[in-house]
Amino acid sequence: MTARPETAALDQTEAALTRIAAVDGDIRAFVTVLGDSARAEARASDTRHAAGQSLGPLDGMPFAVKDNIAVAGVPTQSGTLAFDAPATADATVVARLRAAGAVLIGTLNMHEGALGATTDNPFWGRCMNPLRPGFTPGGSSGGSAAAVAAGMVPWTLGTDTMGSVRIPAAYCGLWGLKPTRGRVPVTGLTHLSWTLDSIGPLARDPATLGAVLAVMSGPDAADPMSAVLQGDGALPGTLDGMRFGIPDAAALADCEPVVLDAFDDFKASLIDAGAVLVPTEVAGWSPGALRRAGLLVSEVECAEALGDALDGTGLSDGFRAMLDYGKRAKPGRIARAYQQLQQLAVGFEAAIQGLDGIVLPTAPQRAFAHGDPVPAGQADFTALANVAGAPALTLPLTARDGGLPCAAQIIGPRESDQQLVAMGQLMQGLPPIWRPD
Amino acid sequence: MTARPETAALDQTEAALTRIAAVDGDIRAFVTVLGDSARAEARASDTRHAAGQSLGPLDGMPFAVKDNIAVAGVPTQSGTLAFDAPATADATVVARLRAAGAVLIGTLNMHEGALGATTDNPFWGRCMNPLRPGFTPGGSSGGSAAAVAAGMVPWTLGTDTMGSVRIPAAYCGLWGLKPTRGRVPVTGLTHLSWTLDSIGPLARDPATLGAVLAVMSGPDAADPMSAVLQGDGALPGTLDGMRFGIPDAAALADCEPVVLDAFDDFKASLIDAGAVLVPTEVAGWSPGALRRAGLLVSEVECAEALGDALDGTGLSDGFRAMLDYGKRAKPGRIARAYQQLQQLAVGFEAAIQGLDGIVLPTAPQRAFAHGDPVPAGQADFTALANVAGAPALTLPLTARDGGLPCAAQIIGPRESDQQLVAMGQLMQGLPPIWRPD
Repeated sequence: MTARPETAALDQTEAALTRIAAVDGDIRAFVTVLGDSARAEARASDTRHAAGQSLGPLDGMPFAVKDNIAVAGVPTQSGTLAFDAPATADATVVARLRAAGAVLIGTLNMHEGALGATTDNPFWGRCMNPLRPGFTPGGSSGGSAAAVAAGMVPWTLGTDTMGSVRIPAAYCGLWGLKPTRGRVPVTGLTHLSWTLDSIGPLARDPATLGAVLAVMSGPDAADPMSAVLQGDGALPGTLDGMRFGIPDAAALADCEPVVLDAFDDFKASLIDAGAVLVPTEVAGWSPGALRRAGLLVSEVECAEALGDALDGTGLSDGFRAMLDYGKRAKPGRIARAYQQLQQLAVGFEAAIQGLDGIVLPTAPQRAFAHGDPVPAGQADFTALANVAGAPALTLPLTARDGGLPCAAQIIGPRESDQQLVAMGQLMQGLPPIWRPD
Repeated sequence: MTARPETAALDQTEAALTRIAAVDGDIRAFVTVLGDSARAEARASDTRHAAGQSLGPLDGMPFAVKDNIAVAGVPTQSGTLAFDAPATADATVVARLRAAGAVLIGTLNMHEGALGATTDNPFWGRCMNPLRPGFTPGGSSGGSAAAVAAGMVPWTLGTDTMGSVRIPAAYCGLWGLKPTRGRVPVTGLTHLSWTLDSIGPLARDPATLGAVLAVMSGPDAADPMSAVLQGDGALPGTLDGMRFGIPDAAALADCEPVVLDAFDDFKASLIDAGAVLVPTEVAGWSPGALRRAGLLVSEVECAEALGDALDGTGLSDGFRAMLDYGKRAKPGRIARAYQQLQQLAVGFEAAIQGLDGIVLPTAPQRAFAHGDPVPAGQADFTALANVAGAPALTLPLTARDGGLPCAAQIIGPRESDQQLVAMGQLMQGLPPIWRPD
């Protein structure tokens, strides 16, 4: 903290607001920009720093949150126009981050209802990938990725139901973390699926993810699923000797060649670093069947969570049709979907025994052009961690063609969130890791 | 094994068959008696013993299984008349027990479809409590309890979805165990609820439960939920210093006074033995609401599991009506029921931290007369362990009025099954434990 400018927090906040004003007309990452309150929070942070009363590593750092996470006084629209009443309280994560001194800049564009992965939003605009104009940033937390990748804010929060933090992080060359289920309270989240939803951070480096996670973690009386937190075990100091499960070739059959090549390069670099790669099968894991089960559970739970709002205005016909499908699904099919999730969670628990993580590509392809056909399998590799309730870290990989980045994820045992962050820090220097210019 | 008669297994089997012939016309515990195959299995056991090749503590012991557990060549009727085709293979538990030398005597009466707790079965007869003629043995594993309590076989298997092993054990003065979810494979079980079902043993003492559990436990490739078994930790050698959570008085408000008195006596004896009783609340636990959620999940899953059989004959109108309710339930209500189960499992996990077990009455009342109004809350205390996926041991308690026994259960952390058995053995000598005359 030596040589910290007296107005460092305010400077960062003004820089964020300036950058948003300059580029977000094209990117469309933000839904709401909270200039006045952000400046006030930044000044308060600067005052604390001047008094030697810093609240920690996030004090004074600007951030923004996905539009399905409540911010007091701001509508939580969840990518629709159906919810225009201002939230009466901050989501627990927002309250904890503000209490740690982080400066809230605004709320972020997302795929409508979090149910999709392109962030081509009919109400809030087609969010653009800052790495390539006209391309999707992924989704559903597309605004959360675009805001960081475009340099508007250093980190954001997204939500991840079947991959919605990790897919946009992958498409935009960022690091992202889906925490262990229950570690980060979801109080104040507009649910897509209360069974699968997690709130997680996106940033340009793993250390920031770890700092944000530490502030957000811990039980919250208002969220029954957050009642148990085992705490963090010892953090790894070297990749040498770590054991990572890797899928067989058949599991990756639908990947683009450029993704497979990048994944091969990543695996080779792990071996060079002394890690042991172990062929691993998750019993019962069929990515397509899992995606369909997760989608049905999401449609049923989202329709139930949104309730009467479904009958009002402000939803697209396509989104409403998906929820209507959930409202009409047969009981037996719903029960079978929950059963698939239960069984796969046990299969994952068995597969991860004795491993530090399972390594997979994050998505089967890279970002693609808005308007192109949307690949059905975008969440095929990411949904596994949601179903298992396990933490997963995505990291950006260099593509051999020098184009848009690829990405890999490490899925860890439950409660190994900070171990994953520490692994990410150890991997940061590996040659295949992608870095922005 | 010294001084073992050369025909000990056959003698026990003949004794079982003789006893069944003598008393089961009144008790109606058995659906099928397998005299010939039982005698053959017993002779084979005697031959092994004579050759010094005993397969272990169960070799030559007669047992019987509830009618929803598959026995090759015998119809698995699940308390109905809808499934008269002989099973093509033994359930995994039956195969394992037979492989350990146990002698299968037959299949046992149960509440129709396992969905109820009186075993007043419209097709297989009103099963009687051997401790008092005309009274229910409980259910749904009523035949499993009655067969042991009437001295027909030394132990049986039942199944427990919301209490269906523990309630009949309680009503008949037996010990019973509901194992950790996934510890005992359910391959070959006709499901009531694949989410909540467990197969567990009933016997006159805890040691027998432990021996049976040891043989039944372990992964089975055909049951995805059995993929993980953590193994047994150290077993306790004394009750001194053990920590048991106890509910507050409000949670027990609906108990009969005689049950509360017996529970008080049990708690006092635990304290005398040096145990520490800790007031414990399971966050979110509302017994009535939990029962309704578990019932809805069971109705939905059972209707799905039975499939086309629902449209045929051999089911009572009452049972069919419950499953029809499950087939027509609204998706949102189903999803909320699964959510309640998920949240309560987390609440239990938080509550059990630092405890060796949570101690509760097994049922709010004792056995009652067939034909009397059926108490709504029979499973109010037992369903908690099914939802938590946790093991639970029920043990019989003496009633102050000298009448039918009461019962308490100890619910342990996941995978503490053999610890519970060992605790039971340590508790066996406590004064409040009920013993048959």
